[in-house]
Amino acid sequence: MKAEELFELNIVKPDEGIYAGAKAVFDGIAKPVDGFGDFEDIICRIAAIRGSIAPDITKKAVIEMIADNGVVAEGVSQTDSSVTSAVAALMGCGRSTIGIMTGDTDISVVAVDVGIDSDGSFPGVIDRKVRRGTENIARESAMSLEECLLAISAGIDTVRDCHDKGVGLIATGEMGIGNTTTATALLCALTGIEPGKVTGRGAGLSDEALIIKTDVIKRALELHNPDKTAVCDMEQGSVKIKTHTLSMLAKVGGLDIAGLVGVYIGGAVFHIPVVIDGLISAVAALSASLIVPDSREYMIASHKGRESGTAEALSRLGLRPVIDADMALGEGTGAVMLLPVIDMIMNVYNSGTRFESAQISRYERFGR
Amino acid sequence: MKAEELFELNIVKPDEGIYAGAKAVFDGIAKPVDGFGDFEDIICRIAAIRGSIAPDITKKAVIEMIADNGVVAEGVSQTDSSVTSAVAALMGCGRSTIGIMTGDTDISVVAVDVGIDSDGSFPGVIDRKVRRGTENIARESAMSLEECLLAISAGIDTVRDCHDKGVGLIATGEMGIGNTTTATALLCALTGIEPGKVTGRGAGLSDEALIIKTDVIKRALELHNPDKTAVCDMEQGSVKIKTHTLSMLAKVGGLDIAGLVGVYIGGAVFHIPVVIDGLISAVAALSASLIVPDSREYMIASHKGRESGTAEALSRLGLRPVIDADMALGEGTGAVMLLPVIDMIMNVYNSGTRFESAQISRYERFGR
Repeated sequence: MKAEELFELNIVKPDEGIYAGAKAVFDGIAKPVDGFGDFEDIICRIAAIRGSIAPDITKKAVIEMIADNGVVAEGVSQTDSSVTSAVAALMGCGRSTIGIMTGDTDISVVAVDVGIDSDGSFPGVIDRKVRRGTENIARESAMSLEECLLAISAGIDTVRDCHDKGVGLIATGEMGIGNTTTATALLCALTGIEPGKVTGRGAGLSDEALIIKTDVIKRALELHNPDKTAVCDMEQGSVKIKTHTLSMLAKVGGLDIAGLVGVYIGGAVFHIPVVIDGLISAVAALSASLIVPDSREYMIASHKGRESGTAEALSRLGLRPVIDADMALGEGTGAVMLLPVIDMIMNVYNSGTRFESAQISRYERFGR
Repeated sequence: MKAEELFELNIVKPDEGIYAGAKAVFDGIAKPVDGFGDFEDIICRIAAIRGSIAPDITKKAVIEMIADNGVVAEGVSQTDSSVTSAVAALMGCGRSTIGIMTGDTDISVVAVDVGIDSDGSFPGVIDRKVRRGTENIARESAMSLEECLLAISAGIDTVRDCHDKGVGLIATGEMGIGNTTTATALLCALTGIEPGKVTGRGAGLSDEALIIKTDVIKRALELHNPDKTAVCDMEQGSVKIKTHTLSMLAKVGGLDIAGLVGVYIGGAVFHIPVVIDGLISAVAALSASLIVPDSREYMIASHKGRESGTAEALSRLGLRPVIDADMALGEGTGAVMLLPVIDMIMNVYNSGTRFESAQISRYERFGR
C-alpha cells in the first residue's frame, strides 16, 4: 500500500440512525434513563459501527502486535530484547498473561510478529515480520517509510482475517521491550508535549534510568523533529498532517505501533470496533486518527493506565476511559477487561425487561 | 441483636501474612511488577480476607436489599413507591436489570425484602421485612432504633446464608425509590457535608425537583441533627461515634441502607469480601465502618458513579474505585461489573506463567 492510497481511504462513518435506535432500546428498558452511563454510549456506538440494531459481537479477538525496538540499546528499559521473544513464544501457546486472562472466554488471541529481532519461528504467532526490530531512534530513523507502510498493511490484513472469521469486536495489545519509549517520543512529536511531562517508568525504572529515558526521547525529537512541529496543531484531514504523522511514525515510532495503526484503520475499513489499551495502543490510535481521521469513530477507550501519556492521547481523541486502575502491563490486558463488562450490558440491551411489559411508567430524561 | 452486641463484635482482621504471600505470587509471574495496578491489591486483599493464598471465589452473590422510603411523599423522585414493588417482582424472577446482567454467570442474585411497602409476596425474594417502608425523614424518624437493628441483623443473616452455601465474594445492591435522598441525608449527617454540595438527580430529576430534594434533605438534617454534629469528626471506634451513627441511620436512613450495613458487617464476621456499588451502598459502607471499624478491611470499591456522594463516601473509607463510567442505575450493577474482571485476573494469579519457567529474569521493583 502506498501512502497516497492510505490517505485517500474512503471510510464510511458509523450509522447515526442506528445509534439513535440503539439509544431508544436502552431508554425503553425498565431502569433509570442513561443508568449505564458511558457504557450505553459504548453499546450504541458498537451497534452503529456494526451497522445493526442487534450487533453480534460474540466472537472477539485481541490482536497483539509484537516487535523489537533498537532504542533499547540506550538503556531505556530494565530488560533487553530477548524478553520480547520469550513473551512472544509464551503468547503463541496461550501462556502469556493475556492468554491466561482470556483462557475461559470467547476472546481469541491473535499474535502477530511484525518485527521481532529473531530469526526463530514462534508457533502460534502469525509471521508478518517487516524486519528484525527497528533502528535506534536516538541515532537514526526507526524504519523507512516503506517499512512503516508494510507494518500498517500487516495490521489491516490482520483485521481482514478477523473479519473473515466473523469477529465482531477487536481489542488491541502489544509486546515489545522499549515501546513505551517510542510511543512517548511519537506522542510528543504529534502533540508538542515536552518529554519531561509524560515520560513514565514503563515496566519499571529507577529514578536514574527515568532521566536517561527522558533524555533519549528528547534527543530523538531533536534529531527527527528539530523545529518541534506539533502535528496535532495542523489542519485535521490535510495531506500535510497525514504525511507528517506517517513520517514521525517511521522516524520515532516502532513496528508494533505502526502495526496497531493498521489495526485501527482496518477496524474502520471492515466496520469492527477496536478497543484501545494503554500507552502504546493509545498513541497508535491517535496516529491512526491523524492519518485516517474517521478511523477515530471506530475506537473505544478502555483504561487510563499508569503512563500519563495514555490520558493525553485519549483526551486528544475525545475518548474517555472507563477503567482507572493504575495498570502498566501491556499485552492488551486493560482492553480485554472491558469485554466481559460489555457482554453483561449487551445482555441487558438485547434482553432487558421493557417498561411496558413490567407495567412501569417510563422515566423522563432530564439533565445529568 | 442489641446495639451493645453490635458495638462489641470482635472482628478478626484480614491476614497480613497472606496478603504479602499473595503479592509475592504476583511478583513471580512473568509480567511487569505491579502491572495489574489496583487489581493486584484487590486480589491480595481477597486472599487475606478469605485466609487462603489460593482463595476460592467461584461462587459469588449479589445481595439486593429492597425497601421503601416514606420521604417519597415529599416529591424527591420522579416515580412513586409502586416501582419498588414492580422491580422487586422482576428481581425475584431474574428479569430485573441485575438478573439479565448476571444471567450467564456464576453470580447468584439474592434479593431480600427488608421493608417493601406492600403486603404482597414476591416469589424469589427472601422475606426479611422489618416493616412496610419507613416514615418520612423530613417529618419524623425513618424508623426506631430497634427496627434499625432488625434490618442490620437481616443483612448479617443473609451473609450467613451465603457463607453456608460456599459463596466467596459478595457484591451489594439495592432497590428502593427515594433511597438516594435518604443516603445523601445520612452521608451529610455523618460527614458534615452541606446537602447542596452532594445532592444529585438519583434516577433523574428536573432542576426544580432537585431543589426540592436538596431542601428536603436540609429539613431532615435540621430536624434530626440540629447541632450539625459530623460523626466522622469524632474519635474512631468510640462508643459515642457508634451510637451516633446508629442513631442517624435510624433517623435519616432507610431499611435498605441498614440492611446493607448488616451485609458489610456480616462480610467481616464471615470473612467474605464485600464489593461496594454506588451511592446507597457506599454510604452504607461508611456507616458500617463507623459502627464496626474493622469491617472496612473487608470492603472493595467498584465504581465512582454519577452521584458525587459516592466518591465522598469512598474517599472517607480510603478506598479507590476502579470503574468510572457515570453510572446511575443501582441494583448492584456497578459492583457486579467488577466480578468478571476479578475472575480474569484471578486466573492469572492462579495459573500465570512464572519467570523461572519462562526463563526470563525477574523484574526489579522501583517507585511507580
